[in-house]
Amino acid sequence: MLIGKVVGSVVSTRKCDSLVGNKFMIIEPLDEMKKSGARLVAVDKIGAGIGEVVLVSTGSAARVGTGMSDAPVDAAIVGIIDEGIGLE
Amino acid sequence: MLIGKVVGSVVSTRKCDSLVGNKFMIIEPLDEMKKSGARLVAVDKIGAGIGEVVLVSTGSAARVGTGMSDAPVDAAIVGIIDEGIGLE
Amino acid sequence: MLIGKVVGSVVSTRKCDSLVGNKFMIIEPLDEMKKSGARLVAVDKIGAGIGEVVLVSTGSAARVGTGMSDAPVDAAIVGIIDEGIGLE
Amino acid sequence: MLIGKVVGSVVSTRKCDSLVGNKFMIIEPLDEMKKSGARLVAVDKIGAGIGEVVLVSTGSAARVGTGMSDAPVDAAIVGIIDEGIGLE
Amino acid sequence: MLIGKVVGSVVSTRKCDSLVGNKFMIIEPLDEMKKSGARLVAVDKIGAGIGEVVLVSTGSAARVGTGMSDAPVDAAIVGIIDEGIGLE
Repeated sequence: MLIGKVVGSVVSTRKCDSLVGNKFMIIEPLDEMKKSGARLVAVDKIGAGIGEVVLVSTGSAARVGTGMSDAPVDAAIVGIIDEGIGLE
Repeated sequence: MLIGKVVGSVVSTRKCDSLVGNKFMIIEPLDEMKKSGARLVAVDKIGAGIGEVVLVSTGSAARVGTGMSDAPVDAAIVGIIDEGIGLE
Repeated sequence: MLIGKVVGSVVSTRKCDSLVGNKFMIIEPLDEMKKSGARLVAVDKIGAGIGEVVLVSTGSAARVGTGMSDAPVDAAIVGIIDEGIGLE
Repeated sequence: MLIGKVVGSVVSTRKCDSLVGNKFMIIEPLDEMKKSGARLVAVDKIGAGIGEVVLVSTGSAARVGTGMSDAPVDAAIVGIIDEGIGLE
Repeated sequence: MLIGKVVGSVVSTRKCDSLVGNKFMIIEPLDEMKKSGARLVAVDKIGAGIGEVVLVSTGSAARVGTGMSDAPVDAAIVGIIDEGIGLE
């Protein structure tokens, strides 16, 4: 998993049926957790707001582990970070 | 997921049977979402045109989440982006 | 798998139900095993402490291979390294 | 998926039983599709020759989507590219 | 798949039960196949020795394709390379 900040969201009207009803948030990974500086889009399973620091799962975990096995989801917000040791 | 622009398409006559009937689009990820600058090829599940900004799922999500479980697909266009907050 | 040092942990009160009861550790991969310098968050299946050098599995292996098939977990500590040949 | 050129092949006599009978080709991704400059080895499901430009699927798609669910295959040539718009 | 040289091994006494009995080798990918210079740890399914050049599968292929579906394994040595065309 990675930790990042929610920095935005996107709207898509024309999309796969299995995605209807989901919120798509833009995640900026923390500097020490970002791979090649890339932001990503994650489905919000928790109700996170812009500016919150969140835990993001990627790959099949984001789909199968959140009850969306049949949706084309490869990243999901799965927790909101309250505090941490070792975050720079 | 990542957001990118459809910049082209490719034609492949000799291909796996399970891929027949699909359109293969070339995606240029947005600068802030690209990993190591790489473009990728995604199957179009939505009917996107060249120049449109789209939502792309990768990995098993692109295959299982789009009803193509038995096809060798690892990236799919799953939505067209109408608007967004936090896109640079 | 990769080898890294446990450098911290995070607490998340509001999270997916299937994640309740897990410890989330921050892993700093060994220099020669890090991809683009990125740290990651891994669920601890072993009882590792901060400062220990551990074996981390990623992807579906971290979820299916640890008995957490229904949880959104994409990285897990699966062993503690006692010794090694070829670690720089 | 990515597009690359077949630049070579390798022979492995001692290998997992489920890999017997496969051809292992070395793929050089097109410049605009390469991640960190890396070549990869892909099983050839199509009958591609050295010098041909091919479509390559990676991850579980290469295994499940090509009828090799029980083989340790993480990349497969799934098509030969005839032509394209937007290839630089 | 990638091709690399076996450069070492690690020992882990305290590990997930499903990993017991496996050998964990350190792989240095060939220069032209390495992503961001990273070494990785792979379970040895073949009996490779230090210094040998091997074929390594990653992701679910390394787990499902080698009969270890229930173990947290994300990389496996699946062949020993005898010879190759196009290896630099």
